[in-house]
Amino acid sequence: MASKIQPVKGTREFYPEQMALRNFIYEKVGAASRSFGYQEWDAPFIEPIDLYAAKSGEELVKKQSFTFTDRGGDFVTLRPELTPSLARMIAAKQGELTFPVRWWSFGPFWRYEQPQKGRSREFFQWNIDMLGVSSPEADAELIAVGATFLRSVGLNPGQATVYVNNRRLMDSEFDALGIPQEKRLEVSNMVDRRSKMESAKWDAYVLDSGLSQTQLDGLKNILADFDLWKKSDELVRLFAALEALGVKDYVKFDPNIMRGLLYYTGTVFEAFETSGSVKRAILGGGRYDNLLADVGGQPLSGVGFAMGDVVMGIVLQEKGLLPEFTPSPAPILVTIFDESLMQQSFSLSAELRRAGLNVLCYPEPAKLQKQFKFAAKMKARVVLTVGPDEAANAEVAVKNLINGGQVSVKREAVVSTIQNILASVIS
Amino acid sequence: MASKIQPVKGTREFYPEQMALRNFIYEKVGAASRSFGYQEWDAPFIEPIDLYAAKSGEELVKKQSFTFTDRGGDFVTLRPELTPSLARMIAAKQGELTFPVRWWSFGPFWRYEQPQKGRSREFFQWNIDMLGVSSPEADAELIAVGATFLRSVGLNPGQATVYVNNRRLMDSEFDALGIPQEKRLEVSNMVDRRSKMESAKWDAYVLDSGLSQTQLDGLKNILADFDLWKKSDELVRLFAALEALGVKDYVKFDPNIMRGLLYYTGTVFEAFETSGSVKRAILGGGRYDNLLADVGGQPLSGVGFAMGDVVMGIVLQEKGLLPEFTPSPAPILVTIFDESLMQQSFSLSAELRRAGLNVLCYPEPAKLQKQFKFAAKMKARVVLTVGPDEAANAEVAVKNLINGGQVSVKREAVVSTIQNILASVIS
Repeated sequence: MASKIQPVKGTREFYPEQMALRNFIYEKVGAASRSFGYQEWDAPFIEPIDLYAAKSGEELVKKQSFTFTDRGGDFVTLRPELTPSLARMIAAKQGELTFPVRWWSFGPFWRYEQPQKGRSREFFQWNIDMLGVSSPEADAELIAVGATFLRSVGLNPGQATVYVNNRRLMDSEFDALGIPQEKRLEVSNMVDRRSKMESAKWDAYVLDSGLSQTQLDGLKNILADFDLWKKSDELVRLFAALEALGVKDYVKFDPNIMRGLLYYTGTVFEAFETSGSVKRAILGGGRYDNLLADVGGQPLSGVGFAMGDVVMGIVLQEKGLLPEFTPSPAPILVTIFDESLMQQSFSLSAELRRAGLNVLCYPEPAKLQKQFKFAAKMKARVVLTVGPDEAANAEVAVKNLINGGQVSVKREAVVSTIQNILASVIS
Repeated sequence: MASKIQPVKGTREFYPEQMALRNFIYEKVGAASRSFGYQEWDAPFIEPIDLYAAKSGEELVKKQSFTFTDRGGDFVTLRPELTPSLARMIAAKQGELTFPVRWWSFGPFWRYEQPQKGRSREFFQWNIDMLGVSSPEADAELIAVGATFLRSVGLNPGQATVYVNNRRLMDSEFDALGIPQEKRLEVSNMVDRRSKMESAKWDAYVLDSGLSQTQLDGLKNILADFDLWKKSDELVRLFAALEALGVKDYVKFDPNIMRGLLYYTGTVFEAFETSGSVKRAILGGGRYDNLLADVGGQPLSGVGFAMGDVVMGIVLQEKGLLPEFTPSPAPILVTIFDESLMQQSFSLSAELRRAGLNVLCYPEPAKLQKQFKFAAKMKARVVLTVGPDEAANAEVAVKNLINGGQVSVKREAVVSTIQNILASVIS
């Protein structure tokens, strides 16, 4: 009975302080999304495993998802990503929806990976997508939403950068090198791994995979060519739009950005914290133009990205960008003087709440000293007491915890007295 | 490939309109919780099955939860309720936390039950608890939070009522009838089922379970005695506090309220919609004083309740209390006149967003008529266009979709022009 049961490995407990961080990210994510007119939505958290079979990539579904058979015999999984659910929901209402569809979501996902810095098995993810438009300007808008978020949490372009590439550009470069179609995914994955390997080892690895020395040299030239974007009309238009959208300083072309998932077809991007303290991407996404057909819908263009809360949380913490934690949402504590005056305190609390104030009321008689100590721990600004004298005179003792001042005011003046004290804190 | 994959039975898809309902409930729940000074928190969504073994009741764990063995061999479950996670988290920091602890949460839960009106397998639940205080006034506070929520969504006491009972009161009545301790849970469950059975059948069922005719008659007397609360000091104090808290009109004593879960020890309560259109409780909770000891903590008093989003959503819908759905968070649409003027529209959008406005920008050149139609579907209030004339004169054409008026204003006057239009809508 009395043994402590630990949480499941890779899950997190959100005490109010951790919850405040999660909510801070959720609020900033929502504000950035809404500022571009995106609507909030969500999908189920458990989904049929078949939904992921097509495009999510073998590793994600077969090795990294929490799958199980439910009591009815259905083979289901805790969702490892959102895009397949998006595709299904859009396909189901494709005839009714007004395009372009702009949707965002923030919710839980699960991947059975080894927990490490920046990675947990149960995490929250921001997803945002635009559907029904194939323009590079739509790609630019999504990148601008990401940059707007980064700016809103206080990260400047020196601290966080969105690196952009384009699958079609790379495909034409790979064509020129004679890398066959069926090798492209493998080559993409090799490029993704390059920064984590020694140079000589990576070369050997590429040659082992069947590329020629000429192809390897050509590939390395491509990956070192930061002007390559000028060959891509899509990227030229993308950067022009980013300039007009006022976020160009957050974005750089980088031919090394590949993104392994099969479903990307055009522009791809990933944001990183630039100091390198967190090696994992802050956010990543791109254009996917074939996704709907795979779940039974008509072909439809899409572009979007996802951002996990774990890496973001670490970056904010390391940069000192987290707002100070407020222990209680209530700046006011009403004490209980004694049992005979308890109802006075309750009715005072109720009156203040009706006036729109958040109010803690001590829930039982206790020494006033203890109640004031509790008020201080909760970082209350104002403590109210109705003792026998105050009750007799229809007054309330108002203690200002910021400057230590105390006054007794008529009950009808309490709200305005409190509002004055609280206003003085804000200004 | 092209076959449609359906969602898992009992899960829900949240299109923006359904998401708005979920968010409406979340916001009202949060506002009620914060107005009493409660802090938001959350627990993992997957938990070890052992966590629920002790107190959740056999049925919940063994028959109704989504349990599975994860890839590491651990036996886990999608959380069917929050209280055991609360107990573990409080127990783990019992020495550091400042009591009374007031916590609330709103998140997903899963129960493998037959989906029906008011019940889904994946649902959201509001949980709110106070820990460290055993006073009836603490019970009253929790009931007052619930009543405050009901009032805040527009339900008056004629439409929704919180029914209250007390386990200790019932225990002393059961003592008087000579109903043995080990039969109490069974009797509670029988009382819970009474309203769903014919009277004669229920009588037979009770007698079959081993109670005597005298005990059955006594039990029926108790269940018909709506003045019974006067025998309970706890309930007398509870109702006095509810009166002072201004929510007495939402609360009634009802000896038929039992609540099956083993862990309740004192006051218990359930809220119902009074017309009977939805038979399931809106919310339910009570006092539990032994929970922490079961997960390895020191004994600690607690009181709390939970409210699911499914029943609440139906009640709001049936009573016509849902706010009108806003298709887009952005009241402004910026059109694209043509490709050559695209960047003008993007930079205008960016400027407005920096001024704090939510702005949709059309993401590609298209016929203006189509763009205006989109604006109307999104219920935008204002449409902005930068055509060749406007661009030449550093102006913007501002169309007021509410009254159909159109003006061209200097670019630096756009924000104030928009603000005036939007202000006229609100007033």
